[in-house]
Amino acid sequence: MPVCEILSVGTELLLGEILNTNAQFLSVELADLGISVLRQSTVGDNPRRLASAVKEALERSDILITTGGLGPTADDITKEVCCETLGVKLKTDAEILKQLEDYFLNRGTSMPESNKKQALVPESGTIFPNKNGTAPGFALEKDGKCIIMLPGPPREIRPMFLEYVKPFLSKHSDGIIITHTVRTFGIGESAMAELAGNYLSGDNPTVAPYAKDGEAMLRIGARGKTRAEAEALCAPVLKELLEVLGDFVYGVDSQSLQESVVNLLIQKNLTIAIAESCTGGYVAKRITDIPGASKVFQCGVVTYSDEMKKIILGVSSEVLEKHGAISEQTALEMAHGVRLLGKADIGIGITGIAGPGGGTADKPVGLSFIALSDSSSRIVEKVEVLRKSDREYNRFYTASKALDMLRRYAQEFNESRKSENNNERRHN
Amino acid sequence: MPVCEILSVGTELLLGEILNTNAQFLSVELADLGISVLRQSTVGDNPRRLASAVKEALERSDILITTGGLGPTADDITKEVCCETLGVKLKTDAEILKQLEDYFLNRGTSMPESNKKQALVPESGTIFPNKNGTAPGFALEKDGKCIIMLPGPPREIRPMFLEYVKPFLSKHSDGIIITHTVRTFGIGESAMAELAGNYLSGDNPTVAPYAKDGEAMLRIGARGKTRAEAEALCAPVLKELLEVLGDFVYGVDSQSLQESVVNLLIQKNLTIAIAESCTGGYVAKRITDIPGASKVFQCGVVTYSDEMKKIILGVSSEVLEKHGAISEQTALEMAHGVRLLGKADIGIGITGIAGPGGGTADKPVGLSFIALSDSSSRIVEKVEVLRKSDREYNRFYTASKALDMLRRYAQEFNESRKSENNNERRHN
Repeated sequence: MPVCEILSVGTELLLGEILNTNAQFLSVELADLGISVLRQSTVGDNPRRLASAVKEALERSDILITTGGLGPTADDITKEVCCETLGVKLKTDAEILKQLEDYFLNRGTSMPESNKKQALVPESGTIFPNKNGTAPGFALEKDGKCIIMLPGPPREIRPMFLEYVKPFLSKHSDGIIITHTVRTFGIGESAMAELAGNYLSGDNPTVAPYAKDGEAMLRIGARGKTRAEAEALCAPVLKELLEVLGDFVYGVDSQSLQESVVNLLIQKNLTIAIAESCTGGYVAKRITDIPGASKVFQCGVVTYSDEMKKIILGVSSEVLEKHGAISEQTALEMAHGVRLLGKADIGIGITGIAGPGGGTADKPVGLSFIALSDSSSRIVEKVEVLRKSDREYNRFYTASKALDMLRRYAQEFNESRKSENNNERRHN
Repeated sequence: MPVCEILSVGTELLLGEILNTNAQFLSVELADLGISVLRQSTVGDNPRRLASAVKEALERSDILITTGGLGPTADDITKEVCCETLGVKLKTDAEILKQLEDYFLNRGTSMPESNKKQALVPESGTIFPNKNGTAPGFALEKDGKCIIMLPGPPREIRPMFLEYVKPFLSKHSDGIIITHTVRTFGIGESAMAELAGNYLSGDNPTVAPYAKDGEAMLRIGARGKTRAEAEALCAPVLKELLEVLGDFVYGVDSQSLQESVVNLLIQKNLTIAIAESCTGGYVAKRITDIPGASKVFQCGVVTYSDEMKKIILGVSSEVLEKHGAISEQTALEMAHGVRLLGKADIGIGITGIAGPGGGTADKPVGLSFIALSDSSSRIVEKVEVLRKSDREYNRFYTASKALDMLRRYAQEFNESRKSENNNERRHN
């Protein structure tokens, strides 16, 4: 199996100004290709130190992947240093120069002189186009070693890797590893691991639990000579795990909670309207992240103040005075009000305290109420987030709970009920 | 100035199962102490490779900080390998053994045999207590070199570093590095770098450009014996750069675009209401990310369909029919409508095509119109995002443009105009 190292270049990484997500992204992708990552390193924008890191890596490994330092400014030196290390010259590529000039023309400006540097390419090697920025990527191969140079911004490196670099690297891989991820919501990592039981000690496929953003996942990986062989090893284990985990599972592989919700709503022909207080538009944002959400998403309303809850959503003064804005009753009236406003099948109302201020002994930071209303029923759930000091997490997790409530509703919904609802709606 | 390296230990990092947030955390803290980080590396749980990474790091640097590999299982080897490299023996520490036994007793179980390993400490050196887990940290000093071993879990390493390691390391620091980041919007990285001109070649302070999420930044770093000395070196350069970059600058240091907007609105005593189509709540979400946004945020509305634009925002059928939903006129009516609905000083209306579908030759994916309306004036801007295939970026960048429009409006707004507005509003 070929071995690989990842070398990230950028003083901003050594200063901690940027979190290195590229190394993780590449590691996952390389594991998928059956390429072992021996080491990840980060050095600053310093030619001497970069050169020695490149040399050391090539002594240990077959493949070196660099990220960053391909930009137009003087401290972008990765291409120059890597080419010098392998003894490859740089030349100006007329086509890339033209693309760069067009890129700036399209933006209504002329190309700054410094960007010309980005049209310099190794005399020999492979060029990976950059559809999301100005710096192309490169592969240099010499004496059995390969250096792949990729840009730093995650929005550029990710599509470039998936579209061009992954197929390029597959020739270095002598088998295939496939992985599937089972995604759950509403169960903790250790409880999920207990349910997965014996599968966790398997060798091929391997099954590993992990947790991310308040969700617990199982990663199933199988090795085979061919994709079909690896998939065949995975299939029975995946099937049994899905049964064992039941309705905690919201999706398999890259599907997000919001994608699963939008797909289910489309499938069941249901429309939604969302009223948010503490989540401030996060649920609407996540639902509309998904292309095609317009088929199911009628409207979203963000109301913080009591006044706006009354004016836009028709929440009653009585409920607000008697129970307060953070209450089951207010959540229910928000859900009901937004459903009518948006002429939707389902209304969601969310009210709570995102923090850091605003909490009381009775109603602490992290508390929220999420309500779901359709034409004939209503559900309300109390949610308490445990990482109280983290406003972003509070809002994200509360939004996830609302999405999960929608998912479970849509999953159980059957079409005959929809036509009843429609009849009823017509009578309203 | 002492130089340092960070070495993270764990096969799960090389597989990409975990994002390495420890390296970033430590880098920020070390910069604060005036300790330069030369390199960050990650190796797996392999004794031979770990030993060679430790040796290499000590050849280059004065201080090595390791994270991870201090746990109770057989693949936790950091302590053993580091001690062997420096020729320091391990012994069982009776007090730590007692603490470990108590830790498990408190959880109602007895200590697993394997945890005894965690009571092994270097014969010489410093022990850092772990208040959030079972693995203490260590510092070993020998022949002018220092190895600091810390646990892997972020919730253990962070408090340990801040309470014990930072004071321990301050004796190694013979100065301080401070950094400031100038954040801009509306100008590209290379154009910004050209404006910054000569400052980019300075040595102390250093000035470096970088780009992130459609924004361009300048990082200014200065070294001094004291914080005051370093700040004094930074101050004139920072001042001149702020002048040169003018109103492209939205903030300095960690402030985000939305934070800058919310602060300005609070300062100018202005309230806002946001109507979104293609951004689907992203602007509302980003504004309400900021604690205290409730002081200025009246309401947000997300309307995709023509019908909802009419019902909730009062957009006219004539405008929708004549100009279409993606038009200057619709954006303006959305801004006007949501301002009235939310009884706000300023209304923002955003309509566009986030993609991947829905584009035409006339109105391509990535096109949007952003309007701002107050009681006496209106602005509308056409935005074309160039990374057409990236829905997330389209939505993020369009939301950024709307935030930037709000920022520029609020920056130029003066209080006398507000009282006029208020008078007018009362007459409505």
